[in-house]
Amino acid sequence: MRETDLLDGFLVRPDPLDPRLSESVAGIDQTGAKTETRVVVERPLTLYLNSREIVTMMTIGDHPEYLALGYLLNQGMLEANAEVTSVDYDPEIDVVVVRTPVETDFEDKLRKKTLTSGCAQGTAFGDLMEVIEGVELPRAELRTSWLYALTHTINSTPSLYLEAGAIHGCVLCKHGRALVYMEDVGRHNAADKIAGYMFKHRVEGGDKIFYTTGRLTSEMVIKTVRMGIPILVSRSGFTAWGVELARKAGLTLIGRARGKRFLALSGAERIVFDQNLAYVEEETMKHRRKGATHDG
Amino acid sequence: MRETDLLDGFLVRPDPLDPRLSESVAGIDQTGAKTETRVVVERPLTLYLNSREIVTMMTIGDHPEYLALGYLLNQGMLEANAEVTSVDYDPEIDVVVVRTPVETDFEDKLRKKTLTSGCAQGTAFGDLMEVIEGVELPRAELRTSWLYALTHTINSTPSLYLEAGAIHGCVLCKHGRALVYMEDVGRHNAADKIAGYMFKHRVEGGDKIFYTTGRLTSEMVIKTVRMGIPILVSRSGFTAWGVELARKAGLTLIGRARGKRFLALSGAERIVFDQNLAYVEEETMKHRRKGATHDG
Repeated sequence: MRETDLLDGFLVRPDPLDPRLSESVAGIDQTGAKTETRVVVERPLTLYLNSREIVTMMTIGDHPEYLALGYLLNQGMLEANAEVTSVDYDPEIDVVVVRTPVETDFEDKLRKKTLTSGCAQGTAFGDLMEVIEGVELPRAELRTSWLYALTHTINSTPSLYLEAGAIHGCVLCKHGRALVYMEDVGRHNAADKIAGYMFKHRVEGGDKIFYTTGRLTSEMVIKTVRMGIPILVSRSGFTAWGVELARKAGLTLIGRARGKRFLALSGAERIVFDQNLAYVEEETMKHRRKGATHDG
Repeated sequence: MRETDLLDGFLVRPDPLDPRLSESVAGIDQTGAKTETRVVVERPLTLYLNSREIVTMMTIGDHPEYLALGYLLNQGMLEANAEVTSVDYDPEIDVVVVRTPVETDFEDKLRKKTLTSGCAQGTAFGDLMEVIEGVELPRAELRTSWLYALTHTINSTPSLYLEAGAIHGCVLCKHGRALVYMEDVGRHNAADKIAGYMFKHRVEGGDKIFYTTGRLTSEMVIKTVRMGIPILVSRSGFTAWGVELARKAGLTLIGRARGKRFLALSGAERIVFDQNLAYVEEETMKHRRKGATHDG
């Protein structure tokens, strides 16, 4: 990975001006006046693994190859060390095909699904506990100075969120630097695109920090653990099962990270309190993500 | 439905003090100080339709019978006029069984799923378009005075959201009155509980308003249309496909409803601007839902 390619620090960042990602829609406001607003576009993307159709996802469509790889990885249909022969995206028919040298049988995994959270695509329960119990996340450090630098960068980077709202963001970070910033209608898509990016470019998770705008549910914890990342940060809140799984996995779980504030409910031993809080700004109405995306 | 049973107007409202719904978790804050916080509990609920296991959902678990019925209705596995023999919930094994006199075959519907939005359980595409195209939503009125009364009531009603955050709310309303307020980790669960309530108590949707804290995605539009409700309101934003489906179905779609502001992107002809805006309060930091639930 060439982490110094871009001057602003990002390797991948949102392109809110891409005309395919949002469209202008006419409406009226509270005074009855006509108004135009930008809304995020969702389009179907059908994923094949070799000759088998897996799923049709609704996505903004900006990184279909990463999304395809990340989906398969996070669903346990592709191993982290798997060989992938090709990933072909056909924009005419909204299809992406991932090919491997050896076909695998995962039909059983598809058959019985557990909706793992408020916003789940469903993941087989047994597999899921295997992931959590089999993991050993590395020792790592989270300096609070990095944390505040990251949230400041992420909140001030132009994004589809700021342009059109109703979208989630996930960011792969190293120390105080935001590296890969993906957005999508669903936070699981945004997270899967990062997983796909890491797989494609052989990026290790051990020295990274994962930031999400979404809640810290069981599903986000599992995805982070699958990526081998020891630290998960969100501006949103927690669910009890998310906290329980994070503690089982030894994941550092930080939520409600806004302005000066944050709350760590798991893995607090990785935190180094090096930031003088007197120099951190509180979040104001102006700074807040507008809540236009209140959910996933 | 006895709509005047409760003095405060609600027939069902959140019970944030129910000890089963949230738990206290220890953590540390940004200063390194030990702190306790309440987080919402998710628990598995396995749903059977007759002898067939359908799905295991993660839910806060407060209305398993309504959730079961609503899930089946909104997935098209139970018709709106279906006869249900019994709904049995067994809290010991977290199982709920819905029984009908006639067994139906819906296996094909389960086989091919389209994840319909950012936060979808998946709904078969074809069925979905049938729902939208076959519908004729009634003429109805949305007075802006009702809208402001509803958002004020909802934002000031004690809820699990206010207690523990990271949760969604959906509210069934009639005119300016909030009737049934359900919460759950996922907004689709909250919506399904309302659908189940309406089915059980034979509540008509035609003169109702549906309020959600979540984004106005295709999935929320479809659920609202299935319930026969002509007006959908949210404090969150829109997705393009949500808007498109709402327009096809003739649904009134109102988003970003905060303080004085709102935006209607479909069905604006139902809106009656009877509220003098000088008497509506702007939303302040204090009033905002804290965004602790940023996603679904």
